[in-house]
Amino acid sequence: MFLRCWIGIRTFSGENLNLKTREERLIVIGGNAAGMSAASKARRMNSHLQVLALEKTSHVSYSACGIPYYVADQVRHHSELVSITPDEFRAKRGIDVLTQHEVVDISPVQRRVTAVMLSTGKEVAFHYDKLLIAAGGRPFLPTISGRENQQVFTLRTLADGIRIKQFVDQERPRSAALIGGGYIALEMAEAFCRRGISTSIIEKQSRILPGFEPQMAELAAAELAGNKVDVFVNQVATEICCGQCGAVRKVTLKSGQKIPADLVLISAGVQPNTELAAKAGLRLGSTGAIAVDWKMQTSASNIFAAGDCVEVRNLVSGKPDYFPLGTTANKQGRVVGENIGGGTARFRGVVGTAVFKLFDLEIARTGLNLQAATRAGFYADATTVRVMSKAGYYQSAEPITICVVFDKRSGHLLGAQMAGKNGVSKRIDVFATALSNKMKLEDIAHLDLSYAPPFSPVWDPVLVAVNAARGKLRK
Amino acid sequence: MFLRCWIGIRTFSGENLNLKTREERLIVIGGNAAGMSAASKARRMNSHLQVLALEKTSHVSYSACGIPYYVADQVRHHSELVSITPDEFRAKRGIDVLTQHEVVDISPVQRRVTAVMLSTGKEVAFHYDKLLIAAGGRPFLPTISGRENQQVFTLRTLADGIRIKQFVDQERPRSAALIGGGYIALEMAEAFCRRGISTSIIEKQSRILPGFEPQMAELAAAELAGNKVDVFVNQVATEICCGQCGAVRKVTLKSGQKIPADLVLISAGVQPNTELAAKAGLRLGSTGAIAVDWKMQTSASNIFAAGDCVEVRNLVSGKPDYFPLGTTANKQGRVVGENIGGGTARFRGVVGTAVFKLFDLEIARTGLNLQAATRAGFYADATTVRVMSKAGYYQSAEPITICVVFDKRSGHLLGAQMAGKNGVSKRIDVFATALSNKMKLEDIAHLDLSYAPPFSPVWDPVLVAVNAARGKLRK
Repeated sequence: MFLRCWIGIRTFSGENLNLKTREERLIVIGGNAAGMSAASKARRMNSHLQVLALEKTSHVSYSACGIPYYVADQVRHHSELVSITPDEFRAKRGIDVLTQHEVVDISPVQRRVTAVMLSTGKEVAFHYDKLLIAAGGRPFLPTISGRENQQVFTLRTLADGIRIKQFVDQERPRSAALIGGGYIALEMAEAFCRRGISTSIIEKQSRILPGFEPQMAELAAAELAGNKVDVFVNQVATEICCGQCGAVRKVTLKSGQKIPADLVLISAGVQPNTELAAKAGLRLGSTGAIAVDWKMQTSASNIFAAGDCVEVRNLVSGKPDYFPLGTTANKQGRVVGENIGGGTARFRGVVGTAVFKLFDLEIARTGLNLQAATRAGFYADATTVRVMSKAGYYQSAEPITICVVFDKRSGHLLGAQMAGKNGVSKRIDVFATALSNKMKLEDIAHLDLSYAPPFSPVWDPVLVAVNAARGKLRK
Repeated sequence: MFLRCWIGIRTFSGENLNLKTREERLIVIGGNAAGMSAASKARRMNSHLQVLALEKTSHVSYSACGIPYYVADQVRHHSELVSITPDEFRAKRGIDVLTQHEVVDISPVQRRVTAVMLSTGKEVAFHYDKLLIAAGGRPFLPTISGRENQQVFTLRTLADGIRIKQFVDQERPRSAALIGGGYIALEMAEAFCRRGISTSIIEKQSRILPGFEPQMAELAAAELAGNKVDVFVNQVATEICCGQCGAVRKVTLKSGQKIPADLVLISAGVQPNTELAAKAGLRLGSTGAIAVDWKMQTSASNIFAAGDCVEVRNLVSGKPDYFPLGTTANKQGRVVGENIGGGTARFRGVVGTAVFKLFDLEIARTGLNLQAATRAGFYADATTVRVMSKAGYYQSAEPITICVVFDKRSGHLLGAQMAGKNGVSKRIDVFATALSNKMKLEDIAHLDLSYAPPFSPVWDPVLVAVNAARGKLRK
């Protein structure tokens, strides 16, 4: 019944719909984390709500973060990355989904969105009562000659992941070049290595992992070197060169050096998809992403936005920030779904927590790094310690490097970063929780953290790091 | 020089010392976590302080928590469990240590402690300006006929651990019975199993792990069963029976059943060593342990106490509690050392965090369990969820069972417990940190926790558990 309702509307393509008696309608632009979380939550809150999600690609509700493990052959089939299919959304949650529909226009006055059916090129229009823009982000694409070649990939959607995987499976590239040295590039470097591909990373800044402290970047660089990944820093790819068959074979650096590459992946950051919102007159924030209030409402009434296309409040700096992450998108989706469904929920912001695995290394961050903290106006300082992850006598105890950033005047924690072979991933969450509570170093030092030799030294690395930082406070 | 000073005093054994010009003297009773942390910190604060630690056993400053791994042959030599030897304390930290000296009397009026040199039986007296009682705890010993037999062990000190290890190495017992079903008993059950010993646990209550929620106890019981450890609940050992050679062979239960046991370990809880303090007229608290203020000072001026002999404030219930743990002892030691050394530090209390490993299972707790929360006067309720520890499609993702205890009226978190094959140990610390900050479930639900498929689902199990609990709040 629900499906029929939307199909009915589709036949009036291009027309303004104005049915007299009907339920309230929510249209969701973008069918991934934020969009589908919101759709589901809104329907749970209000079972009379009619919900239609319009998705440009063929997939909805998948784990983009799982793609490196799929490319690496650690996940058997891409369907394992999909939480819920469009059919399941229809059947189990009463949410209609149209894939391969790219929204090209929003008219806030007429409460109408126009989409192109990518299979036919036809335009269709849909009336909404409430609209959620969850249009996500897209890869930032630096100018490189030869970028349009088919063996030059970006990684954002599941379709991108499937394309890369197919290429690796079928063409068996011997070499890959990654343009960009952020953590997604590093995860993909590991995936390519696992597939036996000789991999290079090209980073334009003076080191990889620009958002991390230099100590973490050094550990990551050592891990890459240990796994025979070549890293070129202070380098820009100027040209992607093809062989005689037209296939990509090399990347030329600014220095003139040529790097072998049967496959090129551009992973140089994410930018928010704001064009639709901007065209519709919605306010963008200082970061360039869509500005929303605590309820995730845009500057237009009845239009909400969530996920990688919006800016968030950084709870440490108190300033707007751009943090495109799946966890945030899911939380925002639930908040906005509650608000659309008739409740009241607030999205408070983020402290900037992230973790990733690089071969045998876990690397994590939360809060501000020293540079960002200084830029944000704090009287910032940092301390780095190296502590064992478990009791020193216990098998598999490994050093963890922890950097704690703090305000020297107030004694408040501002951020923390960690790297080590184990015991990093959830330990960073103690710092994340401390940041959310605006804890001072002194308060953190009193925390009653868990201890047993297989999991921690008697002084947890968190406490050791914080106590070392306190030593600097007293000076 | 330092050593000579104390040796000089020892020659005046039994006499009251009253040297005219001298530095301030600290005597520490008990040379483990609390005592030696305090001694070290006090000396760092005040390098003129003369410090003497009197230890009943032959070892100081060791990891008692590491003993199960030593018995299991996972730690090669017991010296690996020792952080700092008496000689190193003397040479590197200027702290004198006398082992095999059991303090038998404290005279607060004369500021004197009397010890027995266990090697000779002679009494020696030492004058103090400040005294720290870090006398620890001792095993609770239920009445059992045959308890005095040499193959009936308790586990508290490193010497106990060495005795058990020697017995296992030399006598190759085929069977062991553990009296008590707390987590130290469970750790030792694993150690015995790793040594090929057929192991039974006898617990007088209706289930093992009485301080944990029933769900955690069930998972632990299943893990024990899976590793062929027999568990007898609602059972009391009435007699330890010997064979013809005089060696322990069986334990008789109240039911009449006889359990084979070439080795018996009584692990039925810990009680604080308070006799010296009580005899000296110091105030004991409602838990029976020594009462101290925020500075860790007892009811007598210049006498401090720390570690397993004192009671602590439970920060969740706000009430006195007894929580004999190495982490707490270390923290208290540092606090009391700072206060003795001329600074001002406060020990705030504990939230009651603990973790242990049982074969392939990690089991952790923090805060109050449902029963304790109800008893403490909260309008307590609990929710249990079962969530994957990592992204479902990621290798080694395992279910974690999480129980969240909360106050139904205020929405505050009161406690949490977890069990699972991975991802438990440091995840509990998020709850511990939340408890220290008196967070409500709603606040925890907003935490920006780390996510990557190898470490967590996109909704961290902590958030899933808290959101499930919030569902109960609304009802």
